[in-house]
Amino acid sequence: MTDPLVIFTPSGKRGHFPAGTPVLTAARKLGVDLDSVCGGRGICSRCQVAPSFGAHSKHGLTCDENALSPVNAVEERYDRVRGLKPGRRLGCQATIQADIVIDVPPESQVHKQVIRKQADTRPITMDPATRLYLVDVAQPDMHEPSGDFERLRAALADQWGIEELTAPLPVLARLQPILREGNWQITLAVHRDHTGAPPRLIDLWPGFYDGGLFGLAIDLGSTTIAAHLCDLTDGSVLASAGVMNPQIRFGEDLMSRVSYVMMNPGGDAEMTAAVRAALNDLATQLCAQAQIDPRAIVEATVVCNPVMHHLLLGIDPVELGQAPFALALSEALTLDAGQLHLNAINPMARAYILPCIAGHVGADAAAVALAEEPQKSDDLMLIVDVGTNAEIILGDKTRVLACSSPTGPAFEGAQISSGQRAAPGAIERVRIDPVTKEPRFSVIGCDLWSDDPGFAAATTTTGVTGICGSGIIEAVAEMRMAGLLDASGLIGSAEQTGTPLCQAEGRTHAYLIHDGSADGGPRITVTQNDIRAIQLAKSALYAGARLLMDEFGVDRVDRVVLAGAFGAHISPLHAMVLGMIPDAPLNRVTSAGNAAGTGARIALCSIAARSEVEALVRQIHKIETAIEPRFQEHFIAANAIPHASDPFPELGRVVTLPDPRFNSGEGGNRRRRRRE
Amino acid sequence: MTDPLVIFTPSGKRGHFPAGTPVLTAARKLGVDLDSVCGGRGICSRCQVAPSFGAHSKHGLTCDENALSPVNAVEERYDRVRGLKPGRRLGCQATIQADIVIDVPPESQVHKQVIRKQADTRPITMDPATRLYLVDVAQPDMHEPSGDFERLRAALADQWGIEELTAPLPVLARLQPILREGNWQITLAVHRDHTGAPPRLIDLWPGFYDGGLFGLAIDLGSTTIAAHLCDLTDGSVLASAGVMNPQIRFGEDLMSRVSYVMMNPGGDAEMTAAVRAALNDLATQLCAQAQIDPRAIVEATVVCNPVMHHLLLGIDPVELGQAPFALALSEALTLDAGQLHLNAINPMARAYILPCIAGHVGADAAAVALAEEPQKSDDLMLIVDVGTNAEIILGDKTRVLACSSPTGPAFEGAQISSGQRAAPGAIERVRIDPVTKEPRFSVIGCDLWSDDPGFAAATTTTGVTGICGSGIIEAVAEMRMAGLLDASGLIGSAEQTGTPLCQAEGRTHAYLIHDGSADGGPRITVTQNDIRAIQLAKSALYAGARLLMDEFGVDRVDRVVLAGAFGAHISPLHAMVLGMIPDAPLNRVTSAGNAAGTGARIALCSIAARSEVEALVRQIHKIETAIEPRFQEHFIAANAIPHASDPFPELGRVVTLPDPRFNSGEGGNRRRRRRE
Repeated sequence: MTDPLVIFTPSGKRGHFPAGTPVLTAARKLGVDLDSVCGGRGICSRCQVAPSFGAHSKHGLTCDENALSPVNAVEERYDRVRGLKPGRRLGCQATIQADIVIDVPPESQVHKQVIRKQADTRPITMDPATRLYLVDVAQPDMHEPSGDFERLRAALADQWGIEELTAPLPVLARLQPILREGNWQITLAVHRDHTGAPPRLIDLWPGFYDGGLFGLAIDLGSTTIAAHLCDLTDGSVLASAGVMNPQIRFGEDLMSRVSYVMMNPGGDAEMTAAVRAALNDLATQLCAQAQIDPRAIVEATVVCNPVMHHLLLGIDPVELGQAPFALALSEALTLDAGQLHLNAINPMARAYILPCIAGHVGADAAAVALAEEPQKSDDLMLIVDVGTNAEIILGDKTRVLACSSPTGPAFEGAQISSGQRAAPGAIERVRIDPVTKEPRFSVIGCDLWSDDPGFAAATTTTGVTGICGSGIIEAVAEMRMAGLLDASGLIGSAEQTGTPLCQAEGRTHAYLIHDGSADGGPRITVTQNDIRAIQLAKSALYAGARLLMDEFGVDRVDRVVLAGAFGAHISPLHAMVLGMIPDAPLNRVTSAGNAAGTGARIALCSIAARSEVEALVRQIHKIETAIEPRFQEHFIAANAIPHASDPFPELGRVVTLPDPRFNSGEGGNRRRRRRE
Repeated sequence: MTDPLVIFTPSGKRGHFPAGTPVLTAARKLGVDLDSVCGGRGICSRCQVAPSFGAHSKHGLTCDENALSPVNAVEERYDRVRGLKPGRRLGCQATIQADIVIDVPPESQVHKQVIRKQADTRPITMDPATRLYLVDVAQPDMHEPSGDFERLRAALADQWGIEELTAPLPVLARLQPILREGNWQITLAVHRDHTGAPPRLIDLWPGFYDGGLFGLAIDLGSTTIAAHLCDLTDGSVLASAGVMNPQIRFGEDLMSRVSYVMMNPGGDAEMTAAVRAALNDLATQLCAQAQIDPRAIVEATVVCNPVMHHLLLGIDPVELGQAPFALALSEALTLDAGQLHLNAINPMARAYILPCIAGHVGADAAAVALAEEPQKSDDLMLIVDVGTNAEIILGDKTRVLACSSPTGPAFEGAQISSGQRAAPGAIERVRIDPVTKEPRFSVIGCDLWSDDPGFAAATTTTGVTGICGSGIIEAVAEMRMAGLLDASGLIGSAEQTGTPLCQAEGRTHAYLIHDGSADGGPRITVTQNDIRAIQLAKSALYAGARLLMDEFGVDRVDRVVLAGAFGAHISPLHAMVLGMIPDAPLNRVTSAGNAAGTGARIALCSIAARSEVEALVRQIHKIETAIEPRFQEHFIAANAIPHASDPFPELGRVVTLPDPRFNSGEGGNRRRRRRE
């Protein structure tokens, strides 16, 4: 008589096992993805399974209720104390008695697939580097003396098949009392990644620890630093927060920070200390928000541009400020958090810094590529991460190209006469009636338009303080569509445009959007200089995209993805009217939100994704805009605002696009006005 | 016509190479051990060879003067500037033209054999973990962007076959300016050890660096810390120094230090800081002495007992103070010097801590075994490292056993009425005339005996201050030989012994060795309590050795090695008379000097030795004296002083043994009087 047959779903893995074999044992032997922290001791409850009784015509099996052993005392106690879902069994307690089909529900899988974010159907397959393992360690024997650590290592190899464990000194120093406190049972957080480095002990707890392991996905931008606190079991985001990058006091944009170092020897160390302190503050804030022990944060991933990358690592970024823009280091790096002075999380946490693509195209762009996966796309995708520098990626499954383009800070509201960072009171959306030439607008912090009843009352706290990046883009595009601008970008006079809102200002004209002067508020206008600044920025962006398209040998792209916190706020329609991005069907222009942050989160949850992004970065072909003569040509050619060609039937009516802005819980992605 | 034949001596490796092949190239292809730092650029001169012209009947060759290319401009300049020995050529410049025999002199071999110390004929084969490599790094290319570090790594792989280089962050941070300063030529110090860990960049210099690489061999004792500064090219000792272990203020012996931690939570951290500070002081002192740049010290090895091992690593030693004497960690460890806060050397230097054998048998005992090689001995060797704890090793090529025995501090002059640490003024040798019963003695710091003319004048500075460990051992043995003691250790009265020097002291007697009271100096006597303390210590030592002999199944050993700074001072004759060590032919009892320090030096110079000591420690069978009933039996049985059996024809006459004491240049091994 053959042993009972066990079939696991959804994997379909199957095998015969002697009656009395625990389900967990059978699953392990078959390589079924069934979680366990306690290794079958009936403690952790991670190995819950759902036996499937009755007829299974697909498998030609009929399973009766006695195919598994009866519920035992361990399961009864667990159900009483913590509750077991109906039909669930503990895989380490239930033993196989007869042929049976057993389902492993998603929450019992280590490599479960989790949804990345609400608007996205692509899942992350959980595959975190650091996991918990409960082990029983042999007690010391004077006849066979060996170190407690050596016996711990042997136990981990024996009970979990994890060989060659290493441990940093501060963890080793805590081993002996913890082993004794737990009566020789200990829970280990062990880090194993994709590099083939030996497994590394990150932390340890006496007995069975079930407080969870967490990770920090950090998007270290020039202006803001955002972080997500994630559960390493299921990838869920427990808390998100953002702070201003304190390096702003050394220079608003990256090149001013590089200049600061050139002028102030040792300035890089100041900036390194500032950004590390900010990361610690952010981590502390997130731990408080999610009410978790900072020590339980055992992983971090960081995405950032090359200058921030070097400054975080304590490397002078001065070479990035001049041709040939040589990175000190481009490949991915895994470090102790303590080496980065990140002591607000577990100092033994491993920090994974994503690879940089080139001197101007950083780990943030790599993370965008990881999140958006151009290398897997059938369509030709253009991905634009808009910021002070725009990172541009063009590709499909055949090739992927990347470059960066120096757009300057105009898109962020800087160098604009009434410009400001995105903050409550900033005009973020603008519409101009093509007939009356009257503007209407909305401000951050208020859902009403300026011509809605109650707008004034709703904005008494914030006021109307200026115009932010997305506002100025809409304003310029709307001015063009309303006939207030010619194709060269010149603002017409009141006579030419037929509206007194176009007012002379020196030898040029400005368009008045809002006059708050009666109440002591600002007059918000779009000046000729503002138009010129936006033209320069959008030409740079467009020229970068065109350069990649030339290299790819195409005239059109299939779809456009606007990434970055700022990209999330840009109206695709207005971006195209303005000529920021090449033509594409409007419904193929999407916002990826903070794709760099998503990439950081993916790398946090999956070591396979780390291998993937490293391979992808090696495969991406980089174009250096600074030395490409065609970039200059495209730049000059892109100066005009091409509304005349009018490829968009939507023009002339107000299109309400879904607002993809992050909710206020992710405040870090919300740009705030900087006051100094 | 076949290509010219090249034969290298002393290896005998041979091969045919096309005319015009540089000698260095031929040597590398054949795997001949020919050094080079510059990789054949004619800079480093390490690849000097001696072509051997004329008839070589052994090889059936006759080589003429034209078998190598003529001396070229590079060689001429080198000879002019730095001098080339007659007959020497630079292997990278001289090319092969015809059949030739070429000798590689020892100084051009990487794996040269060097003599370990003067009194020892066994050589160390140089095989250091860290070596210098000159590389030319490709400049950055904007069309193929990559990090400077990635290009450096590729250059090292390409030019030296060393793949997968890793670099710590602080070294990476210095890479870019140094590469540019050296015009893309750079010298790297790369660490590669026996563990299979990836090669690691320790330091870098612009262009060609020839300042040498050095290592520190540290013998971290409970009482003194000694270190040798060694040249990693030839193993030579440039400087040696010693300091008191500052932990003495927390407790004289190891167990008092463990008690200090038990009584004072956090006391271990204080002691860790103290010992690390002392190591830094020592390193600074050695660098000043040898006039070298501390940064050039790129390696360190440490040997120490288990308690010092834990305290150095920052691990609470409390478990070592109680059964089952569990080590936190027993295996060898390689760390950054910076992790041990050793910042007085290159903080990226790699520190290798030798493995511990058991909770009472430390890395110092492992180092003794490495130096003395019992596992290769045909004879059965007993190695005794005498200190507050004695480590005892017994073995031959079939098996090696080890234990430690709690001798207490009597052998170091502590708990002895007139005892003191070895320091100028301490009586270190004693002879008693068997007829007159009169003592004569010598003191540390003076070569004369007390009955030599001029002794008083020669000791006016030091005085005669007390009696040190070797002095008390000789005194007790001489007292027994002179009939002042019976076999049970009882001191006879003046009447019984016939000398007024045996004076009543309470209910027992004491023997007066020196009376300085007339000049305000001390009366130095050996009291009955002193005899008892020495009996306890020697019984413990003897019992440990006997326990190992029982385990080995032998009654005699073939030879005895007394190791340790203290072992270096013990007279083997007196040790045997006293019954400290089992009987062995007197000429087979030798002093190994500071064998632990020698072991540290060997491990510093050779990664093969590191593998060897790790394998040896795994192979050594440990015996725990504390739980062996036979230890107690041997201990009690060993209490007597067995002179009556008198196996030694030398007895009764004064044997002058060579003084193996270290010279004053190695002051650290010289114990000094501690005053508090």
